[in-house]
Amino acid sequence: MNTLGKNFVFTSFGESHGKAIGGVLDGVPAGVRIDMDLIREALDKRAGRFEAKGDEAIRREAGVSPRAKREADKVEWLSGVLDGVTLGTPIAFIIRNADTRSEDYEWLKHTYRVGHADKTYQEKYGIRDHRGGGRASARETVSRVVAGGVAQQLLKEKGVEIKAKLVQVGCETNPAHFEEYISNIRQEGDSIGGIVQCTITGLPVGIGEPIFDKLQSHLAFAMMSINGCKGFEYGSGFEGVNLKGSEMYLSENHTLISGGMAGGISDGTPVVFRCVFKPTASNRKTFEAIRREGDEAKGKSIGRHDACIAVRAVAVVEAMAAIVLQDIFSV
Amino acid sequence: MNTLGKNFVFTSFGESHGKAIGGVLDGVPAGVRIDMDLIREALDKRAGRFEAKGDEAIRREAGVSPRAKREADKVEWLSGVLDGVTLGTPIAFIIRNADTRSEDYEWLKHTYRVGHADKTYQEKYGIRDHRGGGRASARETVSRVVAGGVAQQLLKEKGVEIKAKLVQVGCETNPAHFEEYISNIRQEGDSIGGIVQCTITGLPVGIGEPIFDKLQSHLAFAMMSINGCKGFEYGSGFEGVNLKGSEMYLSENHTLISGGMAGGISDGTPVVFRCVFKPTASNRKTFEAIRREGDEAKGKSIGRHDACIAVRAVAVVEAMAAIVLQDIFSV
Amino acid sequence: MNTLGKNFVFTSFGESHGKAIGGVLDGVPAGVRIDMDLIREALDKRAGRFEAKGDEAIRREAGVSPRAKREADKVEWLSGVLDGVTLGTPIAFIIRNADTRSEDYEWLKHTYRVGHADKTYQEKYGIRDHRGGGRASARETVSRVVAGGVAQQLLKEKGVEIKAKLVQVGCETNPAHFEEYISNIRQEGDSIGGIVQCTITGLPVGIGEPIFDKLQSHLAFAMMSINGCKGFEYGSGFEGVNLKGSEMYLSENHTLISGGMAGGISDGTPVVFRCVFKPTASNRKTFEAIRREGDEAKGKSIGRHDACIAVRAVAVVEAMAAIVLQDIFSV
Amino acid sequence: MNTLGKNFVFTSFGESHGKAIGGVLDGVPAGVRIDMDLIREALDKRAGRFEAKGDEAIRREAGVSPRAKREADKVEWLSGVLDGVTLGTPIAFIIRNADTRSEDYEWLKHTYRVGHADKTYQEKYGIRDHRGGGRASARETVSRVVAGGVAQQLLKEKGVEIKAKLVQVGCETNPAHFEEYISNIRQEGDSIGGIVQCTITGLPVGIGEPIFDKLQSHLAFAMMSINGCKGFEYGSGFEGVNLKGSEMYLSENHTLISGGMAGGISDGTPVVFRCVFKPTASNRKTFEAIRREGDEAKGKSIGRHDACIAVRAVAVVEAMAAIVLQDIFSV
Repeated sequence: MNTLGKNFVFTSFGESHGKAIGGVLDGVPAGVRIDMDLIREALDKRAGRFEAKGDEAIRREAGVSPRAKREADKVEWLSGVLDGVTLGTPIAFIIRNADTRSEDYEWLKHTYRVGHADKTYQEKYGIRDHRGGGRASARETVSRVVAGGVAQQLLKEKGVEIKAKLVQVGCETNPAHFEEYISNIRQEGDSIGGIVQCTITGLPVGIGEPIFDKLQSHLAFAMMSINGCKGFEYGSGFEGVNLKGSEMYLSENHTLISGGMAGGISDGTPVVFRCVFKPTASNRKTFEAIRREGDEAKGKSIGRHDACIAVRAVAVVEAMAAIVLQDIFSV
Repeated sequence: MNTLGKNFVFTSFGESHGKAIGGVLDGVPAGVRIDMDLIREALDKRAGRFEAKGDEAIRREAGVSPRAKREADKVEWLSGVLDGVTLGTPIAFIIRNADTRSEDYEWLKHTYRVGHADKTYQEKYGIRDHRGGGRASARETVSRVVAGGVAQQLLKEKGVEIKAKLVQVGCETNPAHFEEYISNIRQEGDSIGGIVQCTITGLPVGIGEPIFDKLQSHLAFAMMSINGCKGFEYGSGFEGVNLKGSEMYLSENHTLISGGMAGGISDGTPVVFRCVFKPTASNRKTFEAIRREGDEAKGKSIGRHDACIAVRAVAVVEAMAAIVLQDIFSV
Repeated sequence: MNTLGKNFVFTSFGESHGKAIGGVLDGVPAGVRIDMDLIREALDKRAGRFEAKGDEAIRREAGVSPRAKREADKVEWLSGVLDGVTLGTPIAFIIRNADTRSEDYEWLKHTYRVGHADKTYQEKYGIRDHRGGGRASARETVSRVVAGGVAQQLLKEKGVEIKAKLVQVGCETNPAHFEEYISNIRQEGDSIGGIVQCTITGLPVGIGEPIFDKLQSHLAFAMMSINGCKGFEYGSGFEGVNLKGSEMYLSENHTLISGGMAGGISDGTPVVFRCVFKPTASNRKTFEAIRREGDEAKGKSIGRHDACIAVRAVAVVEAMAAIVLQDIFSV
Repeated sequence: MNTLGKNFVFTSFGESHGKAIGGVLDGVPAGVRIDMDLIREALDKRAGRFEAKGDEAIRREAGVSPRAKREADKVEWLSGVLDGVTLGTPIAFIIRNADTRSEDYEWLKHTYRVGHADKTYQEKYGIRDHRGGGRASARETVSRVVAGGVAQQLLKEKGVEIKAKLVQVGCETNPAHFEEYISNIRQEGDSIGGIVQCTITGLPVGIGEPIFDKLQSHLAFAMMSINGCKGFEYGSGFEGVNLKGSEMYLSENHTLISGGMAGGISDGTPVVFRCVFKPTASNRKTFEAIRREGDEAKGKSIGRHDACIAVRAVAVVEAMAAIVLQDIFSV
């Protein structure tokens, strides 16, 4: 469903091209001052450092200023906060969908995009909001970033910091080259996968439960719920398949291997995990190929999409990690 | 906690060296005949095809017959089943811990094993059942396999089949060589990682929910809850980072990339995912090293542990996938 | 917390004198046309048939037109509905608090009202939205009535109807006299308790679960969550204490005794339950007494409150019954 | 389903005439010494002070000694406890059904008892364990009393005490006459209703949540889940319908009216609530009447049942109150 958590409960709502997207956060303690600038920053991060540039170019073409877009992401707080301080009651917020242009999506009414959830949604529900992919759109993650922003502030008070970054784009692992690499991919009209690594510091020993509610289980659940995420690993991860037991546990860098968790419970060292994001199917090259096959409709949405969704995913990974941790931590 | 699921609810209990381990299964429909032989088979699989051999050798030494061990895994059904048919009431089952030998673990009272959850448990709870690792022991997975066996039968009735297999051991990807590879590792007194791949066939379109309750989220949650699992991926997974969008979606083998899920919902093709398991820290080499460092106590449990825990994990992966699917599917 | 239900999930938010109150409904099937007029009617019912009249008088005095109040209850649907038809995605709605006049409540900042939750809130949270009682205000039930209205329509499609009515006011049990009785109480500047009876027809046999999730348990839980409700009973209820077993089960009117449920499960006859509502503490007489004691501040909110809250509660009882039933029924 | 609670989670299992009944308790903190004698006492209380006498007579006839019965209630602790101290892991316990005599129930295979859940179970599940009513049997409450006994000890450590007592039997409200009154009813071969009042002392201000998770909601939910309970009220309850607001809040005995809760949250005064229990349908008079109507089978179970189930319910009310409170309190 659309609700996550037991003690810090986040409910997300809104279609990307409906009136508004938003969320409700329950279980926030009373009396906490929310720094709205930090939430603003997280939303900007989600808008993409590398992508922002590309987006600007694209949007200028389409006659939409980046400013308009930024304003579209303005958060309206409906409840739970009085004079910037939490009341202990549920915090509801919305972000109006100012620039919906849903006429652009009319053609989607009868078309399933390749590599999108259009088809599974239609088959599951018998109806779907074709405008902008409805709930399946990446726009839904705006709500997650707002909720995550609140969670991050609650965690900060307990000394916990969450920091994600892009560590691989295609086969490139040197961050200095990421921007150029992605730029080239965009020029080609193509898209590429990426890996985001997230580090959580300041977590005390003992967070997480053995058996089912392992800390890594909750983190994996949250990460796999991000659009385009195809895998989750922590500590030695998939590479660890090649290591021998004797190598692993005599290793000097134990944290690199344990990822900060043992038996499902934080061990006091930094928690480190990685998520892989697939390239998006919505790229020019794909659509040119589709058009060559004669399916005009499917080729329409060219150029509006990211060359590497992992870039924007960084903010969403941080947000989801914060939501999950605050939920477990507030027990 | 120790309960998983919303509609098909599995509660697990029992310390590895307490009186018994067991579980309660709620939400099982009434009137279903349970094939006890299939559950027996799943338990045997968990006991390990390659490992069985090794185990025998080890246990013969220790004066425990493999038969004794097998009998120790005898399931006693306490409720919910009448003449082999489910009643619709909760199914409780236990497996007595016949061969506990808890005096073997006396030394553990004051020792934390390297690479085990001993320390995190002690710090979290202030107390722990030191005998055999308590709940953190792999023995807990026996309950999972029994519950999973029931789930698999309920799924089979709907045409769904779950089949896992070992696809990589260390750097070896040829199944024909796995046995020899592991045998060598054991001879060395070492242990090695492995990758288990699971394929779910017969799942109709539409299983899973968008946003948070994505099918892959639930599968990842369940897999990451298995001892020693360090990563989960589906479809193109981590390797997909190197693929371009244009390559992916024009690919002939779409399922290989999608893994049978789009937008969190099954797309009607087989669901395919992989889990990586780390080598266990409990091996002779590790302990010899420890002993050289003068910490006698830590070196004691030599030889009782698996050279490749991924082998036995195959049955647990199947069980957990079945539990999760039956829970989602029974809505 | 502020979320109710497992399959039909209702999340409520909003302070009575914040920006808006509202809710999110998850688990609504796709493709259902929502009759907005029926929701309008339920909201009008909640505004009170007898009370409306009184309210008007009161509000005219205070210079607020009944129309203004009505407009304040205008529902804005933010998501989950496209062209009046549900999308299967979460339905978010808000009702703006147009006429908040929060300056009226300034004095409450440092005063706890007698018989209100002001004190328990302050002690629990260390902060509270003193304006209009925050979440404890009866205004919060507007969201319940909207959510209940949706639930009632989903239930109607399955042939289930929910109808509540006032059956007792003070010691008066003749409905023909209720209006006069309440009018007299109001004239006295006092308030009085009442009993609401709710009848659910069309429910098939088998709704509810034995043991903990009994149908009556869920109904009781929901009713006791309504402000001012001090008791719940079904079938023979508290009066049944005087009956003998031999009288009860040879009775001609079995349903009167069983209340339509046996062993926690609906038995196919109409489900009948009753709730008692206390008189509100906010009445003129109470405050005059308080004023005589010299505590000026406590006496301020005279006249804004209902002479018999059970009148308006009728709509809320129906709404909560519908929410609970749709949740259980949609399994 | 068969699980109750979020933080202190109780799962109940077992048919009254299956192998065993039992439960699993999750969320019990580690390091607490469990006083098994107190649990023994609670089980004895459930066996009935007045009823015990009657039971003896009945059981002597049937050739079963009261001692045998007592032994049948012997609790076996399977996990979660080591040397009488909790481990922080799930506590599983069973009580073997020694004296099942299920042949006595053969006739029930094709008969629904009047006023029992036999029919609703059969229609809901299509199958039922006819032996002793399966899960619907009052025997299931043995598990609740064990779980409640653990909860009561955890609460006692926090200074909270729960004490229930019978306050009305039929129209009799003088406890000194209860025994004689019930004795007469039994002699008549009939049964009678009763009211149990429960008082919780030592609860600090602030327990319970506003809106849905009100303290009274959780208490009502738990009480209505007890077999035969037809109503729940707190504070002024149903009698309060006759009170005026001015009388209520100027009353000298505020607690009598508030019941210790305001706005769903404990106010620091004792919490007081009452539950009404119906007379059981299984009495001689009912069956004689049935037999006169020619339905021999239905008349069979004469005399095995309580003349006033409210007597034994006292221990169950305490247990359920403790389970609910420990769940809310352990947040």
